[in-house]
Amino acid sequence: MIKKIKVGIVGLGRLGRVHAYNIAFNIPNAELIAVCSVIPEEVESVSKEWGIPYVYADFGEMIKNKELDAVAILSPSPFHTEHIEMALNAGLHVFVDKPLGINVEECKLSESAVARHPNQVFMIGFMRRYDSSYKYAKQLIDQGKIGKPFLIKLTSCDPEHTIEGAIRFGANSGGLFIDMTVHDIDLARWFLQDEVEEVYAIGGSFVHKEFDDYKDADNTLALMRFKNGGMAMFHSGRNAAHGYQVETEIIGPLGSLRIAAEPRKNLCTIFDQNGIVNECSQSFQERFNEAYLEEMKEFVRCIVTGEKPGITVHDGTMNTQVAFAATQAFHERRIVKL
Amino acid sequence: MIKKIKVGIVGLGRLGRVHAYNIAFNIPNAELIAVCSVIPEEVESVSKEWGIPYVYADFGEMIKNKELDAVAILSPSPFHTEHIEMALNAGLHVFVDKPLGINVEECKLSESAVARHPNQVFMIGFMRRYDSSYKYAKQLIDQGKIGKPFLIKLTSCDPEHTIEGAIRFGANSGGLFIDMTVHDIDLARWFLQDEVEEVYAIGGSFVHKEFDDYKDADNTLALMRFKNGGMAMFHSGRNAAHGYQVETEIIGPLGSLRIAAEPRKNLCTIFDQNGIVNECSQSFQERFNEAYLEEMKEFVRCIVTGEKPGITVHDGTMNTQVAFAATQAFHERRIVKL
Amino acid sequence: MIKKIKVGIVGLGRLGRVHAYNIAFNIPNAELIAVCSVIPEEVESVSKEWGIPYVYADFGEMIKNKELDAVAILSPSPFHTEHIEMALNAGLHVFVDKPLGINVEECKLSESAVARHPNQVFMIGFMRRYDSSYKYAKQLIDQGKIGKPFLIKLTSCDPEHTIEGAIRFGANSGGLFIDMTVHDIDLARWFLQDEVEEVYAIGGSFVHKEFDDYKDADNTLALMRFKNGGMAMFHSGRNAAHGYQVETEIIGPLGSLRIAAEPRKNLCTIFDQNGIVNECSQSFQERFNEAYLEEMKEFVRCIVTGEKPGITVHDGTMNTQVAFAATQAFHERRIVKL
Amino acid sequence: MIKKIKVGIVGLGRLGRVHAYNIAFNIPNAELIAVCSVIPEEVESVSKEWGIPYVYADFGEMIKNKELDAVAILSPSPFHTEHIEMALNAGLHVFVDKPLGINVEECKLSESAVARHPNQVFMIGFMRRYDSSYKYAKQLIDQGKIGKPFLIKLTSCDPEHTIEGAIRFGANSGGLFIDMTVHDIDLARWFLQDEVEEVYAIGGSFVHKEFDDYKDADNTLALMRFKNGGMAMFHSGRNAAHGYQVETEIIGPLGSLRIAAEPRKNLCTIFDQNGIVNECSQSFQERFNEAYLEEMKEFVRCIVTGEKPGITVHDGTMNTQVAFAATQAFHERRIVKL
Repeated sequence: MIKKIKVGIVGLGRLGRVHAYNIAFNIPNAELIAVCSVIPEEVESVSKEWGIPYVYADFGEMIKNKELDAVAILSPSPFHTEHIEMALNAGLHVFVDKPLGINVEECKLSESAVARHPNQVFMIGFMRRYDSSYKYAKQLIDQGKIGKPFLIKLTSCDPEHTIEGAIRFGANSGGLFIDMTVHDIDLARWFLQDEVEEVYAIGGSFVHKEFDDYKDADNTLALMRFKNGGMAMFHSGRNAAHGYQVETEIIGPLGSLRIAAEPRKNLCTIFDQNGIVNECSQSFQERFNEAYLEEMKEFVRCIVTGEKPGITVHDGTMNTQVAFAATQAFHERRIVKL
Repeated sequence: MIKKIKVGIVGLGRLGRVHAYNIAFNIPNAELIAVCSVIPEEVESVSKEWGIPYVYADFGEMIKNKELDAVAILSPSPFHTEHIEMALNAGLHVFVDKPLGINVEECKLSESAVARHPNQVFMIGFMRRYDSSYKYAKQLIDQGKIGKPFLIKLTSCDPEHTIEGAIRFGANSGGLFIDMTVHDIDLARWFLQDEVEEVYAIGGSFVHKEFDDYKDADNTLALMRFKNGGMAMFHSGRNAAHGYQVETEIIGPLGSLRIAAEPRKNLCTIFDQNGIVNECSQSFQERFNEAYLEEMKEFVRCIVTGEKPGITVHDGTMNTQVAFAATQAFHERRIVKL
Repeated sequence: MIKKIKVGIVGLGRLGRVHAYNIAFNIPNAELIAVCSVIPEEVESVSKEWGIPYVYADFGEMIKNKELDAVAILSPSPFHTEHIEMALNAGLHVFVDKPLGINVEECKLSESAVARHPNQVFMIGFMRRYDSSYKYAKQLIDQGKIGKPFLIKLTSCDPEHTIEGAIRFGANSGGLFIDMTVHDIDLARWFLQDEVEEVYAIGGSFVHKEFDDYKDADNTLALMRFKNGGMAMFHSGRNAAHGYQVETEIIGPLGSLRIAAEPRKNLCTIFDQNGIVNECSQSFQERFNEAYLEEMKEFVRCIVTGEKPGITVHDGTMNTQVAFAATQAFHERRIVKL
Repeated sequence: MIKKIKVGIVGLGRLGRVHAYNIAFNIPNAELIAVCSVIPEEVESVSKEWGIPYVYADFGEMIKNKELDAVAILSPSPFHTEHIEMALNAGLHVFVDKPLGINVEECKLSESAVARHPNQVFMIGFMRRYDSSYKYAKQLIDQGKIGKPFLIKLTSCDPEHTIEGAIRFGANSGGLFIDMTVHDIDLARWFLQDEVEEVYAIGGSFVHKEFDDYKDADNTLALMRFKNGGMAMFHSGRNAAHGYQVETEIIGPLGSLRIAAEPRKNLCTIFDQNGIVNECSQSFQERFNEAYLEEMKEFVRCIVTGEKPGITVHDGTMNTQVAFAATQAFHERRIVKL
């Protein structure tokens, strides 16, 4: 009979709820036994609808629950470092959404906290690595399909129709590189198996001038040179007219792989007076729904088997560091070395 | 708190296991409490691995279990009629995989059994209706996107690499129309909202002569005229070189919809010396994994809400009847009227 | 120095003008020296704009011109048989647009006329065989890429926006099978290298009831069984919402080839609030522009080299015969054997 | 009757021959009357095969021919400036292949030569502007389809199978930015209607170390900021495994346009055990065949009508200047301002 890992979650916002649901219902050997949020309605609705026994308004209280094996930290980014340390100290396995911390110092604090608890599983939510298409691409590369990759081109754009939320959240997002490009930085490091050495970046508020107020941009470009000579090219944006565009191209001497160049909503194509129309996916949930489930399954699997996740706390630090370097390059109009 | 529907399943073959797993782990308000198979190893492995409390070798025994709310019938097709009636008489909600019966007479027996138990949910596994792309297409049509459809073109081909199994199973499959085309017949009736009036069909064992021995074919074509004037065109095959191809085109006065014209395995495209390569899905499980889950969710939802599934026992009869007419047209080289 | 073949053309309608222009300007070793049409404005505009020396209102007069090596017959279909015979008797090489004749008897008259002039090049305008994609497909098949094809699926639809012309021309088109499907019949015979044995067809005036008055249809389907066992499936239409759709799929044991499944206008894809949009080609001229040039180049090349075109007068007869069989099957609601 | 523009051509290499053929046979109102090359065999083969009356080994001699209206300069790049001035002084209209000159100083010499002959047509061969898909994209943008573009992403890669020629020609190519990226620079300036202000670039010889010897690279990336705030991102390469890849994406507030993301060879798609395969175009001739004809038609049209080509001598200077800035950024590992 399956042993069920008992999980508590903090943070029941948009993504928090997705994870909570997955833990509660879609992972055979996991059980959601506790939910925590400072917003009482969130806690109440989830616990009632789904029958979750323990509810908390305070994270410190939740982690005292002796039945818990693990926590999923989906609280706002500024709380990540603190929640990570508290949970590790309480002897719990920890899943935390990206970013690891809101600056490199925080990330390093988490790194040392993790180092002090080597027998607990620690995993960060760079979910794209668990998307079936990215996993497949990685597997093809590991099999030598395209030779050793030397160049990667990455695009991540949110759709225009969510721009109001992005503007409202603008002061707290950390900027486009921290908020969005960081996912592509993780992919670039993962696919090239290399670390960034030098960064240049430009950007602008071409459509939504509000981002200027936050020293941010609605579209940015970055070039990165890697230590072993590889290169990466990033485009991030907040206002794609057609939808949620996450596209990646990995180039090697024997070929290249392109993932999701056309962000089709589903397999239905419309032929009408407009021409041949493929409607697009409109949100990260729509595109990465399966990846969020798969990463959580991987977290639980690691707890059960005692294996370590492929993605480490150090990845969290590196991704953050590079995203900050890109932000600096953009702000100071110069090349930044790491 | 969620009330859990308690389900038993009979048949733990390839598809039976998929359904068993979904009921056990992926449907929040369902619970798999009983499994039944004449093959002891199947029962044992599932009950142990997944912790299923009740195990049976005999369907009659299983349905005596008073805890059960519903059964899923995944037994071999010749048992469907009998199992349906037994389960309905036992007061259980019934999900049965297609086909409803192995001939029209059996289907009609099931129709009357269902009619005698109007308060129990009865649903047949024409899972394509629950695939997100087909559902989306239906929704677009209902919204008037292409006007009232008058023509539908359908292709269903199994991959060449499963041909050995198909040949081995050849004597018992009922033939390509019954075994495979029946899914497209269901789609055609559903999308055109009309009934078939006249059928013509041809076919041949072009690559695998073994099918001649069963008066069957490795590829068949059929044309159907519908009562209200619509038309349908079917191609079914057993040996597509590239993979599992299920493709549908629905044509109306204002446009057409095409579903899955290119059966891409995932979102990863390979650019190499062969050109631009999209690998293909290779099985119905790979293509319709989500649809199998969704149809079972719908079954459970109907039990909970008391609603009736969109697909009725009569659909099962009609689909079978048309598939037999196509088989007859093929065998007798003539037009068959219904 | 290149010897120039001197060509006269009869018929300066839409397609006639395309051919006239190609002969005049785009074929290095051809020269358009004479144009003939019963419509004086057509003759005058072409001769003046392009500097064509000889102009005629009467075909009989034109072919007396001793400078001519060859004629291109683009006159209305009912004149084809007569013009072919006259031109051959005058010692000229003959290119004639499809159809060879308006019934099988006429075709056979042309066959015997051609037989009496074995040293003159005779070619019919089934231009699709000269389209680079179809030529490429043929070449792949001849190289064994997909094995020996046993099944072909063909679609040809005119766009809805030309429906008024189609209705006006309705009484004289010969019907959809003769007018449109005949091109697909030619492709099917060419790709399968086989002759049709048996035909069944259905159709209807689903959107434009006017075609009922001509015992014609706006959409038709046909199934054909070939002598050596191959099969073909045809859909022809007059009112595709999205544009001019000519799509072909050829299936063999080792793979299949699909030509122009998505009739994209050009290489520009639009990503906007509609989704991912590929605009479509809107006419046979747009789609087959290059093929019309290539077939005329082939005609001239054959004259120069003394070779015989791959497409023969007998192909013209067979294509017509099969198209009539399909028309008969549709009218009489029965299977027609050839 | 059409007046024919009499043209002479210098340079009968790969591209020179393409242009010579087009002028001779595919442009109704042009006539190739003179060919010039220092390689006697080239001159002889062309003049004999195509019947060109005048042949020259010396450009100075050719332009003395009083019958000439215009010349097409396809000589090696180092001769462009000299040939341009000579031809203009001889009163001839001038078409010159890119680059305008091999450095910015040369370009400026040509600019002033052109300025001194304002009544002669002068045009440079940035043929992509005459490709039907790029023209279509420009037209959509001018119609406001995507709003005012602020970002453009451009890729140009030669296929791996031509690498030997590229290596042999390596010392004289001027480097990847001058040789290849310059076409994308032209497109970027044209689509953004803006001038480059600042450039950063990186690159490496990842697969073919030989390029290091020429201070060149087999793959380069560049970022450019434009005066009015627009941005561009360039990837150029010499060794795409799959073929000749020229891909462009233009992004505006209302949508984006993507041209030739998949460099399909033709409309034939192969479905076989590899999956769904689209073979790729393998050379600039294959991809831009039509554009070479169209640009030459435009040159002739401008001579006939007295209009000015959309592409000016100043475009040639600017494209060269930006390509040199990118080369400098790459060599000196710094941001270069223009």
